[in-house]
Amino acid sequence: MTEMHRPLVISAPAPRTLDLIFTPTALALLHRRYRVVEADPEDIAGLGDETLGEARYIIGQPPLDEDTLQRLPRLRAILNVESNLLDNMPYEVLFRRGIHVLTTGQVFAEPVAELGLAMALNLARGIVDADLAFRDGRELWGGESNRSARLLSGSEIGIIGFGDLGRALNRVLSGFHARIRAYDPWLPASLLKDSGVEPAPLETVLTQSDFVFVVAAVTSENEGLLGADAFAKMRRGAAFILLSRAGVVDFDALVAAVERGHILAASDVFPEEPLPLDHEVRLLPGFLRSAHRAGALDVAFRKMGDMVLEDMELMDRDLPPMRCKRAERETVRRMRSRPVTVN
Amino acid sequence: MTEMHRPLVISAPAPRTLDLIFTPTALALLHRRYRVVEADPEDIAGLGDETLGEARYIIGQPPLDEDTLQRLPRLRAILNVESNLLDNMPYEVLFRRGIHVLTTGQVFAEPVAELGLAMALNLARGIVDADLAFRDGRELWGGESNRSARLLSGSEIGIIGFGDLGRALNRVLSGFHARIRAYDPWLPASLLKDSGVEPAPLETVLTQSDFVFVVAAVTSENEGLLGADAFAKMRRGAAFILLSRAGVVDFDALVAAVERGHILAASDVFPEEPLPLDHEVRLLPGFLRSAHRAGALDVAFRKMGDMVLEDMELMDRDLPPMRCKRAERETVRRMRSRPVTVN
Amino acid sequence: MTEMHRPLVISAPAPRTLDLIFTPTALALLHRRYRVVEADPEDIAGLGDETLGEARYIIGQPPLDEDTLQRLPRLRAILNVESNLLDNMPYEVLFRRGIHVLTTGQVFAEPVAELGLAMALNLARGIVDADLAFRDGRELWGGESNRSARLLSGSEIGIIGFGDLGRALNRVLSGFHARIRAYDPWLPASLLKDSGVEPAPLETVLTQSDFVFVVAAVTSENEGLLGADAFAKMRRGAAFILLSRAGVVDFDALVAAVERGHILAASDVFPEEPLPLDHEVRLLPGFLRSAHRAGALDVAFRKMGDMVLEDMELMDRDLPPMRCKRAERETVRRMRSRPVTVN
Amino acid sequence: MTEMHRPLVISAPAPRTLDLIFTPTALALLHRRYRVVEADPEDIAGLGDETLGEARYIIGQPPLDEDTLQRLPRLRAILNVESNLLDNMPYEVLFRRGIHVLTTGQVFAEPVAELGLAMALNLARGIVDADLAFRDGRELWGGESNRSARLLSGSEIGIIGFGDLGRALNRVLSGFHARIRAYDPWLPASLLKDSGVEPAPLETVLTQSDFVFVVAAVTSENEGLLGADAFAKMRRGAAFILLSRAGVVDFDALVAAVERGHILAASDVFPEEPLPLDHEVRLLPGFLRSAHRAGALDVAFRKMGDMVLEDMELMDRDLPPMRCKRAERETVRRMRSRPVTVN
Repeated sequence: MTEMHRPLVISAPAPRTLDLIFTPTALALLHRRYRVVEADPEDIAGLGDETLGEARYIIGQPPLDEDTLQRLPRLRAILNVESNLLDNMPYEVLFRRGIHVLTTGQVFAEPVAELGLAMALNLARGIVDADLAFRDGRELWGGESNRSARLLSGSEIGIIGFGDLGRALNRVLSGFHARIRAYDPWLPASLLKDSGVEPAPLETVLTQSDFVFVVAAVTSENEGLLGADAFAKMRRGAAFILLSRAGVVDFDALVAAVERGHILAASDVFPEEPLPLDHEVRLLPGFLRSAHRAGALDVAFRKMGDMVLEDMELMDRDLPPMRCKRAERETVRRMRSRPVTVN
Repeated sequence: MTEMHRPLVISAPAPRTLDLIFTPTALALLHRRYRVVEADPEDIAGLGDETLGEARYIIGQPPLDEDTLQRLPRLRAILNVESNLLDNMPYEVLFRRGIHVLTTGQVFAEPVAELGLAMALNLARGIVDADLAFRDGRELWGGESNRSARLLSGSEIGIIGFGDLGRALNRVLSGFHARIRAYDPWLPASLLKDSGVEPAPLETVLTQSDFVFVVAAVTSENEGLLGADAFAKMRRGAAFILLSRAGVVDFDALVAAVERGHILAASDVFPEEPLPLDHEVRLLPGFLRSAHRAGALDVAFRKMGDMVLEDMELMDRDLPPMRCKRAERETVRRMRSRPVTVN
Repeated sequence: MTEMHRPLVISAPAPRTLDLIFTPTALALLHRRYRVVEADPEDIAGLGDETLGEARYIIGQPPLDEDTLQRLPRLRAILNVESNLLDNMPYEVLFRRGIHVLTTGQVFAEPVAELGLAMALNLARGIVDADLAFRDGRELWGGESNRSARLLSGSEIGIIGFGDLGRALNRVLSGFHARIRAYDPWLPASLLKDSGVEPAPLETVLTQSDFVFVVAAVTSENEGLLGADAFAKMRRGAAFILLSRAGVVDFDALVAAVERGHILAASDVFPEEPLPLDHEVRLLPGFLRSAHRAGALDVAFRKMGDMVLEDMELMDRDLPPMRCKRAERETVRRMRSRPVTVN
Repeated sequence: MTEMHRPLVISAPAPRTLDLIFTPTALALLHRRYRVVEADPEDIAGLGDETLGEARYIIGQPPLDEDTLQRLPRLRAILNVESNLLDNMPYEVLFRRGIHVLTTGQVFAEPVAELGLAMALNLARGIVDADLAFRDGRELWGGESNRSARLLSGSEIGIIGFGDLGRALNRVLSGFHARIRAYDPWLPASLLKDSGVEPAPLETVLTQSDFVFVVAAVTSENEGLLGADAFAKMRRGAAFILLSRAGVVDFDALVAAVERGHILAASDVFPEEPLPLDHEVRLLPGFLRSAHRAGALDVAFRKMGDMVLEDMELMDRDLPPMRCKRAERETVRRMRSRPVTVN
C-alpha cells in the first residue's frame, strides 16, 4: 500500500503504551497497515489539521471537545483500550456522527474468571490457612482438617452482573454441574437462559447461593448496591467473591459480615487502592485478599492490540466493528469509573 | 418384606463406620432392606454358621481365608468402602466363584479434582503468597504482582493416570479450552479420545505441559515412576500437582526441582504422613502443601453408602453391580496400598 | 399504570399480525403495558399528530419518510418483526437520532438449524429414497443399502455465514465431534474461534468439507457467490445444504453439479418461489427439496412477541435493546431482501 | 518378535470376515503381532492340540463345548465381533476360568444414534412427504406446510435403554437443550444422572415425552415390553423411534397406534426381516421405514478390528480389556438374540 493510502491512526493510549497492548507481531502489522501518529493525549487539539483531517482512528481515550471533533471529519472510531468510559468527550456528537467508541475490557474476562474460581475454591477448602499451618507444623491431616470444607460441584452459585466477566465465569464453572443463577437488570431474561444460566432477582441470588460472585461494573445506579442487609440475607457460611469494583458494595458491611462469621469473602478490589496499612481487612480471618491482581496480566493486555486490529480491519471494509464492545448512547453516562493510573 | 426374606449383610467397615459412610436416610434404607449383622473385622470366622450361611454381602474389607469363604456359600459381593484393595483374602477364589469385590473410591474423585484445580490456579497466580504479603502490608498492586502469573485457559495440560480421578479432573477443566493430554498405560488410546483428551506417551505429557497432574494409583510397576529425569524434562516454570499417592514420585527429586526454581509444585500426599516437622518441603517456596485433605470430605464419604445401596439393589435382582468399581483378576495384585488408618 | 403513563405503540406488522407473533399471554402483557394503536402500514403519516407525537415504538416495517419521522419526536425503536430490512425509510435519520431499528429473525435460527441438520443426515443416509423403496417393496436390507452411507460424527463440516443461523447450526452439531470450519467475512476470526469453530477462507471451506451449509444472508456483495467453480472444488460425494437465500448461489450450476453426480444437495430456498412445475430440480436424484419450510414454524413466530416485549421493557428503562438484532449504519444498505409476502 | 513368541489367535469371525472388520492397516498389524490361524467356526474342535494348546484369543463366536475349552488352556478371551451373545458355549466355565467374552457392538452406537436423530427430525418436520409432494408439484410453501411441524430443541425426550446406544444418542442430542429422561432398569439412577439425563420410570418416559427412542436390547424380561397400553399413554402426536430390536415392542399395536393417528413412528427393525411385501406398515402414513440400515456401515464394522487390537494389546500385558464390552455372568443368559445372517 502506498503511503497515501494507508489510513491514519492517532495513537494516544496513555497511561498504557502500544508496547503493552500489542505483541511485537501485532505492532508490526499495525505499522504496516496504518500511518501511526503518536500524540500527547492531553493535546489532541494541538495536532495539525492535516493529521486531524485524515485520521480514521484514535487509539486511546484522550479528552476531546466539539471543536476538535469537528476537525476530525473522517474519524470512524475511538478504540479506548480500557474497560471504562471517561466523561471527557461529547458522546452525543460521536453517536450522532456514527463514530464508534470501543472498549477492550473483554481481555480481562478470562483472567478475572480464573482468579474468581480460584478464590471460590480457596474459600471452600481453606487452602491458604492449611498451607500456613503446614509451614508452621500445625497442620491437621485428612478429614480432621476438612470440617468446613465443601464442594463447588453440585452447589448453588449466584453471579451478579452477566457481561463479559459473568460469561467467562460461567464458562470456567461449566465443568462443575452447579446450579447457576444470574442477576443482571440490563439484560433480558431470555438471553441469560440462552447462556445456560437461570435469570433470577437479586434477592434470590443472595439467599439461595453457596457462592456469590460480583462481576458487575459500577454504574450510577448500583453504587453501594450490596450492604449489610444483602450480606445478612446470604446463607450462613456462604462465600462472597468480589471481582469488579469495590463501589458496588458497602465494604465496611462486608467486613462486618465476615468478622461475625456469617459469611466468607474474597476480594480483588478495595475502597482505597493501595489500602491503608492499618485496614482491618488485612488480618481478617475468613477473608482472602488480592491486590487488584485479577485482570492485569501481560497476556491480557496484549490481546487488546489484536482486538483493535480486527475491528479496524472490519471498519476499513466499511463493516461495523464486532470484536470490541461499543459504548451505547443509553448507558455511556451511567458508567462511573475512574481513570486507571496503574495497570 | 418379612424378616426371613430380607437378605443378610455383614457389616465390618472399620476403621470407617456405617455412620460415616451412610446418610441417616440411606442407613434407614439399609436397615429396612437388609438384616445387618455388625461384625468384628478381625473375626469374621467367629460368626456363626447360620449368619455366614445366609450372608449375601459384606460391607468392609476384613481379612478372609478360604475356610471362611467356604462357609459363605451365598456371598455375592464384598463392598469394601475404600479406594484400595488389601492383600487379605484369596481373590482367586472370589473371582472363580463370581463374588464381586467392589471399591467406592470414586467418591473422592470430585473433591480431589476440585482441590487439584485449585492448586493449579494457586500456583499459576501466586495466591497464597499474595495473601500473606497483603496481611503483612507488603503487597504489590495490579500488574506489578503478576510478573509470573499465567492462565489455565488455552494452556497445555497433562494428566498422568486417567481413572476416576483423571476423568473428574478433565471434567472440571472442561471450561478452560485447554489442550489436555493424558497418559495411562492401562487404557486403550481410543477410550482416552472418547473422553476428549489426547492419548500421549509419558514423555510428551512431561515435556509439553504447562500443568502436570498426577492422579495415578501406585502399582507394583509405577513406584517412583517420576524422578529427577522426569522433572528435568518439564518446561521451565511449569506446575506439577501431585494428588494420588506419594509413592509414584521420587519426592526428594521433586523437592530439588522446585528448590532450584525449575518447576512449581503442589502436593496433597507425602512420603510420610504426618510429615516430620523438620522436612524441608514445609518452608519450600514455590511449593503448595496440603495435608492429605483432597478427598476426605464428609460429603464424599456419605456417597459411599448410596453407591453400596445402588449396587446391592442391582445384585438383589441378579444384575451385575454398575456403580462401584470392581476388583479385576488381572490387576488386583498390582495395586499396592496401605490400609487407611485415619479418614 | 394510568392510561396516560402507558407508552404508546404503533402496530403495523402487516403482512404479519399481532396474533401470529404474540402468544395470547404476551399479547395481554403488551396491552397491559402499552397503548397500542393499530395502523395501516401504508399510511402511518395519516395517523394524527397526537398519536405520532407520543409514539415510543413502532411494531412493523411500514414505509416512513422524513416528514413523518419528524412528527415522531419520541420514537425510540422500530421493531420490524422480520429478518430483513426494507429500503423504505431514511435510515440515516434514524441512526442520527439514535432510533433503533430491530429485527427478530433470530427466532428462525433454531428451526432452520434443525432442518439443516436433518437434511445433512438425510443426504448422508439416503433416508427418503430408502423409505420410498420400502413402500414399493424394493428395499435393500442392512449393509447392502448402505454402500454410500456415511457419518456426520468425525466428519469435516463447513459453515458459510456465521450469524444467528450459523451459531444455531454449530450448536445442534455440537454432539458430533466434527471438525467445523466457518467462513464469514463480516466477523473477526477470533470471534469465530470463541464460538468453537475454525475461521477459514471460503476456498478451504469448499475443498475440505464433507458437508457444506450455506446460512449467509444475501448482500450486495455475495449475490451468486457460489457458482460452478465452487461446486467443482467440493469433495466428490460431499453434501451441499442451502438454507438461507437462493441468491447466494448460481442455482443452475448447483443443479448441474448434482446432476453429474459430483455432489449431493438439499435446499430450502429456490430462485423462484413457488418454483415452476417443470423445473428440473423437482425430479433430480441426489437432491432433497424443501419448499421454504425451514423457519416458518408457529412456535418461531410466537417468539417474536417475546423478544419485542423484552427489548421494549429495557428501552422503557432507558437501556439499550439487547434481545433483537439492530440494524447497523454500515450494513443496512447492503442487505438485499424482498418483502415477505407469505409467512 | 520371533515366530515363537507371537501369540496365537484363532480367527473364526464368520459370517463376518477379517476384511470386513479390519482396515488394511489394522489387519497388517494383527498379522505382525500375532500368528493367525483361520478356522472353520463349526469345527474348532477339529484344530490340532498344538494350535488349541497355544491359542490366546479367538476372534469370532464359534460353538465351543467343555472338552474343547479344556484343550484351550491358555485362552484369555473370545472377541466375538458382534453385538449379541449366542448360547453356544459354556459361559460358566469361561467365567470361572476368567476368560473374557467380549462384544464389539459399541461400533454401531454412533451410526444408530445418527439415524435415530435423523428419524426424529424427519417425523418432526415431515421431510419425506414434503420432498415427495415437491417432486409431484403438490408442495405447500412456507408456514402452510408446517402446521404440525415441531422442534426437538426444548422438547422432552425419553430414551428407553441407556447402554452404548443410549449414550451415543444422548451425545448427538446434546446441542438441543432438550429435557432428556432415561429408563434403564439395569443401571443405577446415579449413573444416569452422571451422564446428564434424568432417571425415570418407564411410565414417565412414555407419558412425558415428545420423542421416545427405544434402544434397549431384547432380554428374557422385556420381550413385548411396549404394547397397546404403552402407546396409548404417549402424548398425542408424539414420535416413537425404534432402533434396537423389534422384539421389545408389540409391533401390531405400534402399527395400530400410528394408524389411528395417535402417534408418529419410525423403525429400523421389524418382526420379520425381510418384511412380507404385503405388510401394512409399508404404506402406513405417519410411519418412517428403514430396512435394518441403522448400524451396518462399513465404517462401523472397520472399528471392530481396532477395538479387538486395543484389547488384545492390554491382555498381552496382563491387563484387563477396557475397550470391548464384557459378557457378564449375571446377564449372559438373559440376552436373547439371533445369530446375524447378513451384516
